[in-house]
Amino acid sequence: MSGVTVTQQSAVAEPPDTGGQPEPQPEPQRDKLTALGGLSALSLDAMASVAYGPESIVLVLAAAGSYGLGFTLPVTVAIAVLLAVLVASYRQVIAAFPDGGGSYAVAKAHLGRRTALTAAASLVIDYILNVAVSVTAGVAALTSAFPSLYDQRVWLCLGVLALVTAVNLRGIAESARWFMAPTAVFVVSILAIVVVGLFRDAPVSTEAAAGHASALAGNATAVGALLLLKAFAAGCSALTGVEAVANAVPSFRAPRARRAQHTEVALGALLGVMLIGLAVLIGRFQLQPVEGVTVLAQLADASLGHGFGFYVVQFATVVLLGLAANTSFGGLPVLMRLLARDNHLPHVFALRADHQVHRHGVLFLAVVSAGLLVGSGGDVNSLVPLFAIGVFVGFTICQVGMVRHWYREQRQGWRGKALLNGFGALLTGVAAVVVTGTKFTEGAWGICLALPLLVLLFEAIHRSYARIGTRLELGRIPGPVTRQRSLVVVPVHAITRLTRDALSAAVSLGDEVLAVTVVHIVPDTEDRENADALRRDWELWHPGVPLVEVPDAHRRLGRPLVGFVNELGSEHAYGRITVLIPEVEPARLWERVLQNQRGALIDRALRRHTDAVVCRLRLRM
Amino acid sequence: MSGVTVTQQSAVAEPPDTGGQPEPQPEPQRDKLTALGGLSALSLDAMASVAYGPESIVLVLAAAGSYGLGFTLPVTVAIAVLLAVLVASYRQVIAAFPDGGGSYAVAKAHLGRRTALTAAASLVIDYILNVAVSVTAGVAALTSAFPSLYDQRVWLCLGVLALVTAVNLRGIAESARWFMAPTAVFVVSILAIVVVGLFRDAPVSTEAAAGHASALAGNATAVGALLLLKAFAAGCSALTGVEAVANAVPSFRAPRARRAQHTEVALGALLGVMLIGLAVLIGRFQLQPVEGVTVLAQLADASLGHGFGFYVVQFATVVLLGLAANTSFGGLPVLMRLLARDNHLPHVFALRADHQVHRHGVLFLAVVSAGLLVGSGGDVNSLVPLFAIGVFVGFTICQVGMVRHWYREQRQGWRGKALLNGFGALLTGVAAVVVTGTKFTEGAWGICLALPLLVLLFEAIHRSYARIGTRLELGRIPGPVTRQRSLVVVPVHAITRLTRDALSAAVSLGDEVLAVTVVHIVPDTEDRENADALRRDWELWHPGVPLVEVPDAHRRLGRPLVGFVNELGSEHAYGRITVLIPEVEPARLWERVLQNQRGALIDRALRRHTDAVVCRLRLRM
Repeated sequence: MSGVTVTQQSAVAEPPDTGGQPEPQPEPQRDKLTALGGLSALSLDAMASVAYGPESIVLVLAAAGSYGLGFTLPVTVAIAVLLAVLVASYRQVIAAFPDGGGSYAVAKAHLGRRTALTAAASLVIDYILNVAVSVTAGVAALTSAFPSLYDQRVWLCLGVLALVTAVNLRGIAESARWFMAPTAVFVVSILAIVVVGLFRDAPVSTEAAAGHASALAGNATAVGALLLLKAFAAGCSALTGVEAVANAVPSFRAPRARRAQHTEVALGALLGVMLIGLAVLIGRFQLQPVEGVTVLAQLADASLGHGFGFYVVQFATVVLLGLAANTSFGGLPVLMRLLARDNHLPHVFALRADHQVHRHGVLFLAVVSAGLLVGSGGDVNSLVPLFAIGVFVGFTICQVGMVRHWYREQRQGWRGKALLNGFGALLTGVAAVVVTGTKFTEGAWGICLALPLLVLLFEAIHRSYARIGTRLELGRIPGPVTRQRSLVVVPVHAITRLTRDALSAAVSLGDEVLAVTVVHIVPDTEDRENADALRRDWELWHPGVPLVEVPDAHRRLGRPLVGFVNELGSEHAYGRITVLIPEVEPARLWERVLQNQRGALIDRALRRHTDAVVCRLRLRM
Repeated sequence: MSGVTVTQQSAVAEPPDTGGQPEPQPEPQRDKLTALGGLSALSLDAMASVAYGPESIVLVLAAAGSYGLGFTLPVTVAIAVLLAVLVASYRQVIAAFPDGGGSYAVAKAHLGRRTALTAAASLVIDYILNVAVSVTAGVAALTSAFPSLYDQRVWLCLGVLALVTAVNLRGIAESARWFMAPTAVFVVSILAIVVVGLFRDAPVSTEAAAGHASALAGNATAVGALLLLKAFAAGCSALTGVEAVANAVPSFRAPRARRAQHTEVALGALLGVMLIGLAVLIGRFQLQPVEGVTVLAQLADASLGHGFGFYVVQFATVVLLGLAANTSFGGLPVLMRLLARDNHLPHVFALRADHQVHRHGVLFLAVVSAGLLVGSGGDVNSLVPLFAIGVFVGFTICQVGMVRHWYREQRQGWRGKALLNGFGALLTGVAAVVVTGTKFTEGAWGICLALPLLVLLFEAIHRSYARIGTRLELGRIPGPVTRQRSLVVVPVHAITRLTRDALSAAVSLGDEVLAVTVVHIVPDTEDRENADALRRDWELWHPGVPLVEVPDAHRRLGRPLVGFVNELGSEHAYGRITVLIPEVEPARLWERVLQNQRGALIDRALRRHTDAVVCRLRLRM
């Protein structure tokens, strides 16, 4: 598979699924991205992480009281350094993999199948957690503005999830334009907070946080290295989404690698400025985390005052996070399709036709996310670390793969590039280990369990397809097509127009035709009378097809026919025996329940226990 | 349909369904009932109603305080008189309908189809309510003995229901013997209570009722006629089940009508003695209804003391009521089968083969009953009146039908017989109206809604079958079977062993064969490359079958094939076109999810929108 495009922005990388009414695919050229367009379309997830990243740092440091909170800026600067390393590193990924493809593609090229599958599994988990994190963070922004809604936050989360799910089930014509306005409003709002805040010495308002319980844990005078490491690891959740640009290189206009690199750098710079700016304000306003009001809301309050500006920030945050949750619904089906094409998931997910499958994926994602939302009680801060683990695993695999890439190429200056990627891998790897270790009992065990299980599942599915592929003789030109004498068996239980149609079809198809009826040998006069009547009427009708009676003492339908067909198959010199089942197909929908299901029952039994070709003739009426 | 046998005792009237492992049907003669055997096997429901009938009277009369409770005996005597009328009336039904058949058969013969359907609908409702009433009454007996379980009564009810459901899903070899012992123990217990109680002047123990809140409502000194009528109507619930013998006449040994009549009289006498005996004791011990302890438990306490005897009575009641609930699971499927044979329910319910349907019926009954249990909060006294309505509607229809029967026959003494049945109809009709009126807002409205809706449903189904039957030319010998040229279309999307097998089968069946592939005209290089590769390989393989490419711009599979098949059908002079879909059928169960569902998708589209014969060739591997 060349040109793997694992992307969270299905809107851009993939023609949209438009639900029940398919539309002609758009022209390929018009949809391509400029650097600015790419920034709008692909920065969504990275920007969204500003809503919960700084908060994660503050919450960890609050364990060491006000003294601890003083370390917010240094920790944020360290994260900004990692961000710079990641951006530089991803610039290299873009250059090396201009066909796009995130950690899955890099790992597949350089680290072998199992590592690639680990990357894929971490991506699957990320897509799911992204929905849960974005929805809870969005609702946290909402309840920060309207505190009376705080007690209903789980229901609000489920409501937002239901909305996003409904929109995706319905099918939307996604477009980069949809994302542009909310992203722009959000970025401008954050920058406004930072700039206005820098001109203030004290908060202009603390109304939002007033009356809420402080989450400050103590009043330490020393801060350990472990706490700083934890804060660093937690804050790294602000970096989720920086990989999106590298995943979606093919969506850019030519020269696509260049444009994508520009976008990546711009994204990194913007994100870095926002994070550091917010950290500076947190220190300046001596902000403390409180329960029920986000750090971002407190900062908006402190900078812009509890007025129009505050509500604009909160509203922009809610919309942005809703859109961030939405990207998973576009991205996960694309990833599953890629995995299915590589035989790691059932092929049904690769079947793009008729939009059936897409819905299954959307519903699956919705149900799992709903479980996470309820399980976490709608608390964003318990979900963010789990989200970070998967993202960092992906980052690390990607960087290690790149080191391998440079080593294999050995072009001029490869050592510097390899060193950069290696340093990135080290940092993100450490972050992954720290988050996993500190949050192990608080849900990280679930990620540690789900990752290998997913990998094992992918591998088991791959083995099965390989086995089936061998037996199907895939890739070889099969032997010649040969004609054999054909025998068609028609199960009957009454003589009607349907019987005549079925026998007519059967004699048109088969060299030989047998009608067969199962006679129940039971002490029930009605059954016996029916059998006698059928035989009598058959002789009267004289259709030119023999009627065979198969006796059964157990009131069964499927098994006796299975026995009959298998016996015929072993006795006679036919190819496959064909069984033609006549059925009435009522025209009205509700009348479908009136079908007697005999056909389905016989079909299932024959499919499981014979090699017969099973045909169903439906008389629609 | 002659010899309709609507019976709650499927064990007796019908060969048992034994679940997954069918057994040869038993000899018809050995299973027939003597009068005593019939009493054991068929009295179950009637005896079970002793557990809640007297309680219903006492609860109504308690509205007028202790003074009102004094009328328990007179009301019970009135009910016993009605019982005598009913028994005499059903003796006549047995004589007139020796082939069995309850109200449905009588109404069908004498009152027309719609009245018969009303009787059937009331029976369906009864079967459902019987489960709910028996389970709640059984649990009430249990919590009377173990008051600490009272708060868990809804869960206990659901547990008992789950047990009965599981037993019926599993399939049990039912037998009259199973019912004999519990029925005998219960009857002997009740008679012991009565006889021992008559020798006592005061309760030997009131321990069971101690500490429970009295349900006594006031201390009136006058009792209105309406209250007495209400008490009478409520108490009539004790009469449910007396129709069972008349329903099951064919299960008796010859002379079956005589034996059944003896059984009916014995049942009536026993029931009458028990009811009057209990009423006498209620008066003598000045028993008052209390919450959480049944009247029967209080009487057992008062007569036998709070010892071994008390617990035997309670335990026997629980087992008996569990078995009473079980009868619905045997009876409802039998009734539904009869209705299906008369085209009033989907034929799938008449399909006795392979035990699939039986399970649907069991699960349906379990779910609806569970809803009633939860809705009533596990309170037997709110369910009993609803149960009584359906039973009385059936009684009344049956008696009115019998009046018509005697009038039509005009044999010697017909006036007396008609008068007796007419009197019975009047009493049960009044009882039905009174219960419905007094309980209308407490759930009886549901019955008033469900009854006509069920009748309308039965009729709509009947009309549909009639329409389909006409178009199927049922009952006429159809025209001759004719051979036509046959065209077989094989959808392909790759060249494998499966393709070869499918084409081989197709050329064996068809005079002409076309392979067809849907080419998606989309701006996706992968799709185009696949199509080109298929065409190239096809020419290389040269199977002797032309490959037709059907273009589609919408990434669909089903619709383009539907269009292709319908176009072929209108252009060419074939009979029905046959479409043969090749599929892989994985051998292991879990591998079924690996199928790509293309076959099912194409099958569904062709079934809905074409007249083609759809064949599926499954390569099991």
